Amino acid sequence: MKPRPGLLDPQGKAIHHALNSLGWDGVADVRVGKAIYIDVAAESQQAALEVADAMCRKLLANPVTEDYEVSGISELEGAGA
Amino acid sequence: MKPRPGLLDPQGKAIHHALNSLGWDGVADVRVGKAIYIDVAAESQQAALEVADAMCRKLLANPVTEDYEVSGISELEGAGA
Repeated sequence: MKPRPGLLDPQGKAIHHALNSLGWDGVADVRVGKAIYIDVAAESQQAALEVADAMCRKLLANPVTEDYEVSGISELEGAGA
Repeated sequence: MKPRPGLLDPQGKAIHHALNSLGWDGVADVRVGKAIYIDVAAESQQAALEVADAMCRKLLANPVTEDYEVSGISELEGAGA
């Protein structure tokens, strides 16, 4: 989940400034968002991704201020029920 | 970046509880971390990943409380300098 383009991101600005201070000059932009790791029991990776997408739409993401994307982590496949 | 295993994550706990309240019962665990998107000019994707890894080690990640991983986003390749 990350702030939508055009919205102010003071945390990203602060990190951008700090990186420049430490000598990294090639940085064009920094945006800070949230990463939410959900361990969910599902019959397949596809089903788990659909559940996670529904969670984002109904609870986790604010569509006015945030963009989100959902992806699977393969190491969790074996841990699911 | 996400909280290391074993460390308390009250934000994750709150989301876990909220998901259960909304009827999602198959959730085993939720952890909330940070996603930092850095647009950096580099000669190759590999070089950009190495720069990002150095940034994490020197500034962005707290190794006591957080694990981090670095990955590239292909759509940014064309946007780099």
